[in-house]
Amino acid sequence: MTSRLPTSLHRTLSRYKPGDLRISPSRLLDTLHHSCQWGAAHRYGPQPTQTGMARLSLDANDAKVRAWMAREAEAVGCRTVVDGVGNQFFIRPGDRADAAPTAMGSHMDTQPTGGRYDGILGVVAGLEVMRTLHHRGLRTRYPLALVNWTNEEGARFPRSLAGSAVWAETLPLDQAWSLKDVNDPSITLRDALVEARMLGTHCDHRSLPLAAHFELHIEQGPILEQRDKRIGVVLGGQAYKWFDVEISGMECHTGSTPYEYRADALLCASRIIVEATLMAKEVGALASTGIIEARPGSVNTCPGTVRMTIDVRHARSDVVADLCQRIRARSAVLGRGTGDRHCTVRWDQTFESDAATFDPACIEAIRDVAVATVGSDRVLDMYSGAGHDSFSTSLRCPTGMIFVPSRDGISHNPSEFTEPEHW
Amino acid sequence: MTSRLPTSLHRTLSRYKPGDLRISPSRLLDTLHHSCQWGAAHRYGPQPTQTGMARLSLDANDAKVRAWMAREAEAVGCRTVVDGVGNQFFIRPGDRADAAPTAMGSHMDTQPTGGRYDGILGVVAGLEVMRTLHHRGLRTRYPLALVNWTNEEGARFPRSLAGSAVWAETLPLDQAWSLKDVNDPSITLRDALVEARMLGTHCDHRSLPLAAHFELHIEQGPILEQRDKRIGVVLGGQAYKWFDVEISGMECHTGSTPYEYRADALLCASRIIVEATLMAKEVGALASTGIIEARPGSVNTCPGTVRMTIDVRHARSDVVADLCQRIRARSAVLGRGTGDRHCTVRWDQTFESDAATFDPACIEAIRDVAVATVGSDRVLDMYSGAGHDSFSTSLRCPTGMIFVPSRDGISHNPSEFTEPEHW
Repeated sequence: MTSRLPTSLHRTLSRYKPGDLRISPSRLLDTLHHSCQWGAAHRYGPQPTQTGMARLSLDANDAKVRAWMAREAEAVGCRTVVDGVGNQFFIRPGDRADAAPTAMGSHMDTQPTGGRYDGILGVVAGLEVMRTLHHRGLRTRYPLALVNWTNEEGARFPRSLAGSAVWAETLPLDQAWSLKDVNDPSITLRDALVEARMLGTHCDHRSLPLAAHFELHIEQGPILEQRDKRIGVVLGGQAYKWFDVEISGMECHTGSTPYEYRADALLCASRIIVEATLMAKEVGALASTGIIEARPGSVNTCPGTVRMTIDVRHARSDVVADLCQRIRARSAVLGRGTGDRHCTVRWDQTFESDAATFDPACIEAIRDVAVATVGSDRVLDMYSGAGHDSFSTSLRCPTGMIFVPSRDGISHNPSEFTEPEHW
Repeated sequence: MTSRLPTSLHRTLSRYKPGDLRISPSRLLDTLHHSCQWGAAHRYGPQPTQTGMARLSLDANDAKVRAWMAREAEAVGCRTVVDGVGNQFFIRPGDRADAAPTAMGSHMDTQPTGGRYDGILGVVAGLEVMRTLHHRGLRTRYPLALVNWTNEEGARFPRSLAGSAVWAETLPLDQAWSLKDVNDPSITLRDALVEARMLGTHCDHRSLPLAAHFELHIEQGPILEQRDKRIGVVLGGQAYKWFDVEISGMECHTGSTPYEYRADALLCASRIIVEATLMAKEVGALASTGIIEARPGSVNTCPGTVRMTIDVRHARSDVVADLCQRIRARSAVLGRGTGDRHCTVRWDQTFESDAATFDPACIEAIRDVAVATVGSDRVLDMYSGAGHDSFSTSLRCPTGMIFVPSRDGISHNPSEFTEPEHW
């Protein structure tokens, strides 16, 4: 892939000398926690900031933090554009008014038992950049934008990256609008936009193009911490597929049924989990089961039915597709077993995401600055395991991501934490 | 073990010629279904008898069927004794009034989603024996008894074999009395006895001895059907131990956490299930998991905690004890894994039952009659995989059990069925 990054921008970034222009870490920290007053939940310690978050997309707290974001961005010279799916674009003019802005974006919504960093850090860091430029009285040749993407988590409306996907035209606006609140299906995403006063005029990557999109995000994994790195330069995002797998065997009494007459759905499920892991390891991929339910659920009854999920990931879409096929085939063999009775294994694909490839010039620019800031031995090239709004933008504009360490690799959890010095 | 069966009884049984005295199969069938009017539930077909049962111990339906049982037994010459835990003894006098009765016993209570045969068949078959003797005007030298043991299932009050264990003095009466209704802990078993008018005078194997105990029961497994046998001669009951196993790892994101940094509690649990099965197979034992719960339960989060049960069985108590130790040791190794992060595995034993050994003379008597009735190629010596009241009685008097086939090996299920011709 050749870079689509505007040469002028590339040159500007490459010429940047670290230390010429620094943000205020304490202001960034204060702002992050200030913004978390809307949706703070799940206290885990005595300090005021020792809580997690429950700020579901477009709920009352999200409406409040969005209104606050707009006031803060406008106070440092940005104008606000809200599109048809509630994405907020805070645009800071450059010398060339005709050019597309270079964006920094992430999301302010959280999981119901989320933390204070996932998404939030990226948006408030972008606000801190705007404030720094403003207070230093600096103008840029090209416009800049800070973007707060709607419903990234998919926790309230069950489609992750919904806002950025509408902008990228991989999700039609009317499909996004008709997404239903998982807790109250009478509320659509469009209803929630109206309620939050966030229903703007439809615009997408054609009508509101971005010259590039940069996203600072917590790693949500343990790699940087374990390898004692400070900054991850993200080369792209893994492809992944999700499946609901149903294993149908036959209930039987644990005491009176010899193995050869069993069709134990849970034993079959366990074998699939173990073998899927081994098969994934062989090709450097990941296969994981997060949800499992076994029925009927009695100590002395072998389960007749198991429903579980399987999540398969790798940096290459073709590796994911091939591995999924082989795991499915193997699961059918495991279902047949060696005894007289068999389990049947049914697979339903529930979601898939192709691999995301980030822009070489963006990657290089991020790496150069990272190395200059923390030294080459503290910088790591890596792939993103989780999905991000940058996956959507990477389809439409040059995109890059910056990862910072997650303590213990914990994310989607109230105790999610990133050392402020790692920002 | 040498037989404790009275010589006189042994001689009588050994002299029995099949065909001299036959029950009425149609009356037995009618009686079984008649008794199921109290507690019928879970319809699965259009025929009146195509339902399962939900007759929990000492509930209103159990009280009705108990009152009906007493009327029917008394109508054919039995006197009723109810003991302190509600066990009903219907005693038919013999010529020798001073001798202990030879008993036929099982239970009338069912699982909440139970069938029409488990326990019920054994009790109504005993009633049919009493009726046959009565209508033929036959007297026996020794008294006979039909026993309806209380709370065999342990489904309402969580201690299986409770009534027979009190009789056998392996469960103190006050402990049985204080068992709490699993659905309404404000009700004790003693309260339920009073409510059902089934609180009698305490008596046990000392004050109300039985000369022997025979139990006809459905197999609750597939062996007889699969091997085309009609009657199982039960040599004893498997020992078993139940465990709650808790595996504590660490939640992590399925996409951003390489295997070496995971402590995936569900992967660890799956390995334990698979390896416990292999280890049990090696020694001819059974290890099974019926209940599993994984938290937090999200497609893209590796579970941090899994709770599951493990049920280990073998005909010998020492084999069970040794196997359980080895599975526990192996689970600790599997928990440690090969990566940087570990799962801890905690085991709590929740129940154990020693192997039951039945009486050689009772076994021989049953086998002789079975062979004479259906031919030696349709009779199979076997062990009971499930627990039965006969396990309790075997500790205090010569005991034997007769198994009849279960269609598809299904039990503890509304569709439980045994061909009437197999009775």
